[in-house]
Amino acid sequence: MGKIKYDILVIGGGPAGMITATAAKAYHGSKSIAVIRKNKEAQVPCAIPYVVGGRLETEQNTIPPQMVTKDGVDLIFDEIVEVDFYKKEVKSLNQTIYGYDKLVFATGSLPNIPPMEGVDAENVFTVKKDKESIEALKKSVCEAEKIVIVGTGFIGVEIAMEFVRSGKEIVLIGREPNILRQAFDREFAKEGEDIIRESGIDLRNSCNTKRILTNDKNEAIGVELDTGEKIYSDAVILAVGYHPNVALAKKAGLRIGKKGGIWVDEYMRTEAEDVFAVGDCASKQHFLTRKTIGLMLASTSTAEARVAAISLYKIEYIKGFSGTISIFSTVIGDRAFASAGVTENEAIKENIDVVTATFEGIDKHPGTLKDTHKQIVKLIATRHNGTIIGGQISGGESIGEMINTLGLIIENRMSVSSLIGLQIATHPLLTAPPTAYPIIKAAEMIEHKLYGNHTLSYEEKKEILEAV
Amino acid sequence: MGKIKYDILVIGGGPAGMITATAAKAYHGSKSIAVIRKNKEAQVPCAIPYVVGGRLETEQNTIPPQMVTKDGVDLIFDEIVEVDFYKKEVKSLNQTIYGYDKLVFATGSLPNIPPMEGVDAENVFTVKKDKESIEALKKSVCEAEKIVIVGTGFIGVEIAMEFVRSGKEIVLIGREPNILRQAFDREFAKEGEDIIRESGIDLRNSCNTKRILTNDKNEAIGVELDTGEKIYSDAVILAVGYHPNVALAKKAGLRIGKKGGIWVDEYMRTEAEDVFAVGDCASKQHFLTRKTIGLMLASTSTAEARVAAISLYKIEYIKGFSGTISIFSTVIGDRAFASAGVTENEAIKENIDVVTATFEGIDKHPGTLKDTHKQIVKLIATRHNGTIIGGQISGGESIGEMINTLGLIIENRMSVSSLIGLQIATHPLLTAPPTAYPIIKAAEMIEHKLYGNHTLSYEEKKEILEAV
Repeated sequence: MGKIKYDILVIGGGPAGMITATAAKAYHGSKSIAVIRKNKEAQVPCAIPYVVGGRLETEQNTIPPQMVTKDGVDLIFDEIVEVDFYKKEVKSLNQTIYGYDKLVFATGSLPNIPPMEGVDAENVFTVKKDKESIEALKKSVCEAEKIVIVGTGFIGVEIAMEFVRSGKEIVLIGREPNILRQAFDREFAKEGEDIIRESGIDLRNSCNTKRILTNDKNEAIGVELDTGEKIYSDAVILAVGYHPNVALAKKAGLRIGKKGGIWVDEYMRTEAEDVFAVGDCASKQHFLTRKTIGLMLASTSTAEARVAAISLYKIEYIKGFSGTISIFSTVIGDRAFASAGVTENEAIKENIDVVTATFEGIDKHPGTLKDTHKQIVKLIATRHNGTIIGGQISGGESIGEMINTLGLIIENRMSVSSLIGLQIATHPLLTAPPTAYPIIKAAEMIEHKLYGNHTLSYEEKKEILEAV
Repeated sequence: MGKIKYDILVIGGGPAGMITATAAKAYHGSKSIAVIRKNKEAQVPCAIPYVVGGRLETEQNTIPPQMVTKDGVDLIFDEIVEVDFYKKEVKSLNQTIYGYDKLVFATGSLPNIPPMEGVDAENVFTVKKDKESIEALKKSVCEAEKIVIVGTGFIGVEIAMEFVRSGKEIVLIGREPNILRQAFDREFAKEGEDIIRESGIDLRNSCNTKRILTNDKNEAIGVELDTGEKIYSDAVILAVGYHPNVALAKKAGLRIGKKGGIWVDEYMRTEAEDVFAVGDCASKQHFLTRKTIGLMLASTSTAEARVAAISLYKIEYIKGFSGTISIFSTVIGDRAFASAGVTENEAIKENIDVVTATFEGIDKHPGTLKDTHKQIVKLIATRHNGTIIGGQISGGESIGEMINTLGLIIENRMSVSSLIGLQIATHPLLTAPPTAYPIIKAAEMIEHKLYGNHTLSYEEKKEILEAV
């Protein structure tokens, strides 16, 4: 069998792999580039809950081959089973050899399966990202009347809300004391939980699932909780996170990081020469604690993909921001929720001394305008010097973009003081009023907590602040 | 007559004055503070087009006294006619004397009246900000069937679109080659103009109004253009900008800046000791050209108000960003438009060497989701080092917040390169896809234009780039 040689070879065709390829083509136009993808059709991962719930068809939710082929990148449908860093080549299931100068792992992630009795029964599903698995899940859900969903992260919550829209009876079970624990403090989660419960979903927080109940045909008939309570259902969906898909990388001998991802440096370089990793399969470092974190987000993945692409041949572009901020948004019912950086809960756990403030405003002005939503912003800043390290927002759809302003504030290590003179655009039909823009108001509130009365002398202030 | 003494006295109760007072109270809690306002009821300025058009009532659009009084600020309804910087006191129309330690001018702006025949006829209106004038304008408009609006800035365009909603026949006349010239380049303006024309408005760009036509009862019956063309109407609205209201400041001897505003330094201090000015009546300096500019925006005013308030007694807070960026948003029909920093047109005029790129995407993903809008982002960066100095966006409502991310990028003097690793939140129902977030895509496009092929040597690149 002949060997096909590419300058840049990307293993994996999800968002991270596809963006690595197109960005690499843009930066290194003369290079030959290929993406090798196992599945003919790849799904846009973040929209999968809306496909499963029936709002979208799988066909509407593909990452189309044209995304890379239009730029002259080859898209090869094949599965890589071996990598040889010394020979600089990879071998596929059907024995084809592909040579490379630069190799990029973008092998994504796989759903976690908890070590629990009954997980291999019929009608037990995880949320995989390939079309076939999604179609199978959709079909089974169509027939089910009552569904238990285990896991109250983004996927669990989004899928639960989509199913309840289509008239299913849903029990949503989470181990954590509140939903979306990774992104939201109790009070924001509570707002979402109220909507979830109002929709008819039976939400159980702080609740451990002990095992999946099965009948004699090995079909799931429900779950049993730690408390002994049994909840019967026609299907069980396990939405308890994902883990990096690193079987191939491990086999090839790449160093694996603490949370199971391929170890990478700031420029997405692995420990093997000319080998990079991006997206869910790559290790991520928290922007503040510097710990390895298990964050998996398509938007983070594409940022990594662009960094890798520009850095394949030399480090010319210097990264401006170091580490991963967790930056999320979602919709629960008719309300949007978003978060960036650390939560107050995480700050306490990590022993970061913080001051917080929450401002409640409106997203149009005056509030008597049609379709005005309550808009709530919480900021989390260091007590030491008021650097903003996290924030949470709930409101109408516009907060999906507002969180990106907050993300940029965190990436730029801005302080609450620096927001006092912030120049923003406001408009009656689009935003909060200029007199009460929630991000600025919350920053001011922290400013006051930190620095108190500006007319006092430093000695007087010190005394007061020490008493805070 | 006795003299009432306040620590901090603010003249003017629009957004700038009110925010100065509340922020001052928060920073200097022990000080006595008063706002002296001429009108009992002040209108939120940015919503005036929606009041005039009937979507809101004047009552729904007030800046309520409680905004300051709830914090313990006195709101005095009176008109100041004299200021004595030496005695540190002001005198009102009814001869009351108010003493001060710190005085803040927040006297706002007044509509421009062009030096044109017929401007003092009946049924000729400017868009003033007091309730009485707005009610009079509303009443007259109710009776009119056909209205000529002169001026294609934000007020002219917004009012025209509101009137056409209520079935009026509208002719909108602008001197500039496109609408909203201060904020948008031709291609974005064109998009808005198409919506305006589709709504039935007769829009005339590059068109000079010579005079207002009147009948023998001195009632306006239309306008005559430079070309000799006569356009007949039942009312004429002049929306040709505003000028700083500085009669009192001038009389008191304050230095006035080039565009007619009260001269102020970075901390909103005038040349008189202990005297500050904020908002429309204060001079503004362009963040880049350092020229005095005639920008008037409530959001800018409130930023100035916060800076003044914190700086009344000492400069403790150091401003992070110097100069005013023009940052706007508006809605035309069912589409939103926003702009920050310099336009390409302004860059050319000011001899700034720029590179631009425009990316057209979608604001939900996949684009087959309900209510997905086209989202177009144009970025303007310096050719020298890719610093982003301006941008324009059109799309759905979410761009009202997206522009604030762009504003922050400009305020932080970020380069197109620094956006390559930008971490953003994306969600199918809220934003563009992570693979094609328009701000990042446009930044990448400029990166490629500036730095070309990253695998070339510097010598090869230099040759190519010199030929661009």
